[in-house]
Amino acid sequence: MSLVKTFPAGLFSKAMNERDLIRRLQKHSKFIGDDCAILPNGKEDLLVTTDQFIEKVHFLRETHSAPDIGWNALARGLSDIAAMGGTPRYAFVSLALPEWAGQKFLNGFYKGFLQLAKKHNTELGGGDLSHADQFFCDVMVLGAAPRGKAFRRDGAKPGDYIYVSGPLGKTKKRFEPRIETGLSLRGKVSACMDISDGISLDLARLCEASGVGADLTQIPVAKGATVEEALHRGEDYELLFTSSRKLDYFCVGQIVQPRRVHLNGRPLEAKGYDHFARKNT
Amino acid sequence: MSLVKTFPAGLFSKAMNERDLIRRLQKHSKFIGDDCAILPNGKEDLLVTTDQFIEKVHFLRETHSAPDIGWNALARGLSDIAAMGGTPRYAFVSLALPEWAGQKFLNGFYKGFLQLAKKHNTELGGGDLSHADQFFCDVMVLGAAPRGKAFRRDGAKPGDYIYVSGPLGKTKKRFEPRIETGLSLRGKVSACMDISDGISLDLARLCEASGVGADLTQIPVAKGATVEEALHRGEDYELLFTSSRKLDYFCVGQIVQPRRVHLNGRPLEAKGYDHFARKNT
Repeated sequence: MSLVKTFPAGLFSKAMNERDLIRRLQKHSKFIGDDCAILPNGKEDLLVTTDQFIEKVHFLRETHSAPDIGWNALARGLSDIAAMGGTPRYAFVSLALPEWAGQKFLNGFYKGFLQLAKKHNTELGGGDLSHADQFFCDVMVLGAAPRGKAFRRDGAKPGDYIYVSGPLGKTKKRFEPRIETGLSLRGKVSACMDISDGISLDLARLCEASGVGADLTQIPVAKGATVEEALHRGEDYELLFTSSRKLDYFCVGQIVQPRRVHLNGRPLEAKGYDHFARKNT
Repeated sequence: MSLVKTFPAGLFSKAMNERDLIRRLQKHSKFIGDDCAILPNGKEDLLVTTDQFIEKVHFLRETHSAPDIGWNALARGLSDIAAMGGTPRYAFVSLALPEWAGQKFLNGFYKGFLQLAKKHNTELGGGDLSHADQFFCDVMVLGAAPRGKAFRRDGAKPGDYIYVSGPLGKTKKRFEPRIETGLSLRGKVSACMDISDGISLDLARLCEASGVGADLTQIPVAKGATVEEALHRGEDYELLFTSSRKLDYFCVGQIVQPRRVHLNGRPLEAKGYDHFARKNT
């Protein structure tokens, strides 16, 4: 979730135009455009996100253990809830299993999944199970935020400071969704999203949604990562947010009016991890 | 949804015991066991269901058009909402596309999907998009029912009449989820589910959940189908329900105390469509 987030640059570049498809779908849905759909529900808003986790696209059997796969499959959805400043409540998991994924694998998968769910008070609500030629997983997370208070991408204003919740560029075996950070930012941010495809690409999306640009001055680089990786590598899952206030997070620059993104005075190309091609664009 | 429904008899018979897995998962979730999870939400209950629709498992490219695939992918989830006597509200669709599924296919898929969604006042809430070696789709439907009024599988009582909402055994290109039927049954049924894997298997599940048995006396056979198909063929998506009242639907028998299912005095084997093996067990 959402489709905007999940159509990386270059996706369907030959077969179709992803922006056209999104615009067409947006005619049918007013919910597409943020990390979660925001559904009015009495005094609060329900937040809904779905994220796929697929063999050879999002992970490799060779490098990820079954518990790591279960953990990360859920972590992606929880990260979307965090990006909205929400509280997660329920998770649903649909699995299609190939022959290699037997009982031992499934035990491990659920172990990692439930370990992370427990950590964030998220209940397993159910799911679906089938088989396929490759391992396929789709996780839906249902969360909530006070009515009208969920963070969105379209609220950044010129002059706002731009922040990230941690250093960038390093892919971890298991990543930590920034639920607590999101909750602590309630009432303080003008726009927010999680960095799933690299800050250069995701910041461009945030700027486009807000109708603004950005001047970046510094990027916190994770230990062992290069500046290039910090800018363009996917799957950081840190939060990217803007605020008119000085906050105690890494300030990477400021929102400006011209609709372009610069890094130290030079144009920054919006390129990031392409989940479709499984490579950096 | 739910896992109980989606672990057909024989699934993982070699690699694992599906009942053990369900029982283990049920320790972690009080929501598993009906067609939808029932989540308390103020004066109503939210109903959540997820259903996969996978190439070579649930459909074949050769026999299903793109609009039919989109329609049926959503219809499965709507049928689960119908089985709970619920009103559908939002649908989310996660897609993983192989190379053959280009723009034309996607247009057709969404056309069929949105056609059915509109028919049942269901809004497209969002989704996720990725790629895979085979076409993979997971649809989540969010619905609602008055608090405590959603139908369950575990309420059938000895003496109750057993009904189906229509003749059985015929697979259709597009099937109609019985939303209106479900709504009209509110307050009248003691247990309900949809028939997705054949009445012999699904009735056995309903009986097991309720701790009862059944005496079947007659089965309405769809035009062009055999009795064998009406008993054991999957994907009817008619509703199967029980009531102490005489209702204006096909009465197929009565609930009894001994925990076994008989058809005209003889044991009826619980065999049905095995989505895992893509064949009748």
